[in-house]
Amino acid sequence: MSDKQITTRIVLASRPEGRPKPDNFRLETVRLPEPSKGEVLLDILYLSLDPYMRGRMDDAKSYAKPVAIGAVMEGGTVARVVESADPAFKPGDIVLSHSGWQSRAIAKASEIRKLDAKAYPVSTALGVLGMPGFTAYAGLRNIGKPKPGETVVVAAASGPVGSAVGQIARIMGARAVGIAGGREKCDFVRDELGFDAVIDHRSTNFAEELAAACPRGIDVYFENVGGHVWSAVAPLLNDFARVPVCGLIAHYNATAADLQGPDRLPATMRDILKKSLLLRGFIQREFADQRPDFEREASAWIASGRLKYREDIVDGLENAPAAFIGLLDGKNFGKLVIRVSNT
Amino acid sequence: MSDKQITTRIVLASRPEGRPKPDNFRLETVRLPEPSKGEVLLDILYLSLDPYMRGRMDDAKSYAKPVAIGAVMEGGTVARVVESADPAFKPGDIVLSHSGWQSRAIAKASEIRKLDAKAYPVSTALGVLGMPGFTAYAGLRNIGKPKPGETVVVAAASGPVGSAVGQIARIMGARAVGIAGGREKCDFVRDELGFDAVIDHRSTNFAEELAAACPRGIDVYFENVGGHVWSAVAPLLNDFARVPVCGLIAHYNATAADLQGPDRLPATMRDILKKSLLLRGFIQREFADQRPDFEREASAWIASGRLKYREDIVDGLENAPAAFIGLLDGKNFGKLVIRVSNT
Repeated sequence: MSDKQITTRIVLASRPEGRPKPDNFRLETVRLPEPSKGEVLLDILYLSLDPYMRGRMDDAKSYAKPVAIGAVMEGGTVARVVESADPAFKPGDIVLSHSGWQSRAIAKASEIRKLDAKAYPVSTALGVLGMPGFTAYAGLRNIGKPKPGETVVVAAASGPVGSAVGQIARIMGARAVGIAGGREKCDFVRDELGFDAVIDHRSTNFAEELAAACPRGIDVYFENVGGHVWSAVAPLLNDFARVPVCGLIAHYNATAADLQGPDRLPATMRDILKKSLLLRGFIQREFADQRPDFEREASAWIASGRLKYREDIVDGLENAPAAFIGLLDGKNFGKLVIRVSNT
Repeated sequence: MSDKQITTRIVLASRPEGRPKPDNFRLETVRLPEPSKGEVLLDILYLSLDPYMRGRMDDAKSYAKPVAIGAVMEGGTVARVVESADPAFKPGDIVLSHSGWQSRAIAKASEIRKLDAKAYPVSTALGVLGMPGFTAYAGLRNIGKPKPGETVVVAAASGPVGSAVGQIARIMGARAVGIAGGREKCDFVRDELGFDAVIDHRSTNFAEELAAACPRGIDVYFENVGGHVWSAVAPLLNDFARVPVCGLIAHYNATAADLQGPDRLPATMRDILKKSLLLRGFIQREFADQRPDFEREASAWIASGRLKYREDIVDGLENAPAAFIGLLDGKNFGKLVIRVSNT
């Protein structure tokens, strides 16, 4: 099995009902073909695990197709080129690809991007300098648009999107209030990331504490979790508040039983009307033309210490299912990345 | 009681629970003072009845203060100047004021506007050329932004906002699908107003009929009713659809019993996320700087027959409470206006 064409991969064995279980995944070993013209053979170094992957496990209409039963779980990856049948890449190049949960892969040269391994740790291309960081940047720049002195609230504040939202909001002159789960994460958000305030969503007085931390109300709520956080945030939203909606992790494992009443939709629509609220769902790729701006600005912010990040690196592809299940329960602390290969 | 200083007025006697009842209102007769410097004495000709007034009857935080118990119900009015203590107005001038549910009123000259009684029937200043027409115009221009060929859906399509939304959408090159209650209103919306399709919301197959009328989905849903229409619209919304929210008449009389589950909020938030939807509440006055554009354009559209309107005129201020209660039940047919004075 040392053949460089052999890939170990994790496929979707069955669709979960509610929270995924280990047996929804299956580890397989298969032999890849030789790369054709315009393709490369990749050795995967890092696999990104992100909440959106839960949606791909369901057979429901979304902005992306579901993963088919028996197909490799999808995901962003950082990889090393092993063989190249394209003049733009040579063995040893480090690239960003979307190769999914596997150890080796064939990729089209047109769908991968070379990374500068000297500038930053290459795993950051999956986090603060990648999709999650750009989600924060694009959502604030295009939808949230915080003005100096305004209050920006974000949950999962120690995670890759939330941590960037709060820090970029502060760079834009706003006040950042984070929500996180547990003392350790809360301390990190306030003391390391420099948020103006942080609330533990597990607190029994969560809604009251959030209100106390937002004495002038909330102008931007960056929605990446849903669930009970929304219920605490909604009464605090100011007139003309903006709500970029980029994720709803609290709903991803929901089942029919979670939809028992009361029906909160009428009150939310009334809030939208009475406070002239803006709610806007988005996927970062809609704003792809701003990606170069983001990379330039975010790199400078990291270099100057204004944009910090934390990675939660788990060794071994075989541990991806358990790490992913934990991610949906909020067990990770920082950007969750699987180190697939140490070579 | 022929004294020109005597006003008959309808005050809020008590706050309604759910649907207003006649005894929430009280008819009173009081004597007004002489107009002070900068004021005028008005004889009210027409009173506008609009769904937003239901919100003013509740003691709840909103974009406007509630009407106090014992105070005159508020509302837009067209009036004739009887006495003027301001050089800008003279007796006989016809003006737009916000004098509420009464037969005579004192108004500040700075808060009224002269109307050209020769150009259009003055009652249109409360409808197609007034707040409801401008609500349609501003919501489409600033939030809905329909592109040629897109599908725009609006409910209460025979009413003053809905009828203007569909016709202006067509002027902008979009396809207009209306929703109305009953055969007579539906025929009017299709045959007189020229909507591309119309659906009766009382139909037992409402959702299926709406889907059939929108074969390419919905790009703009102009939300002015809420309730079960939203549940039928949501599955048809296209990616990047826009939802200006200007009214929720179906919710205004809601009580706690109407909020029994299932909880529709999670599904709505998922739709917002997965389809990159925009929901935006608004009040037309936010866009007041566009009012001159609207008046110029709408007047030209009326003159050329592209923007039609229907008024539902009820005689006598004493009939305002019953007419208003009927408005909330969808009993009016066209812009509901009370003819207060025939003099």
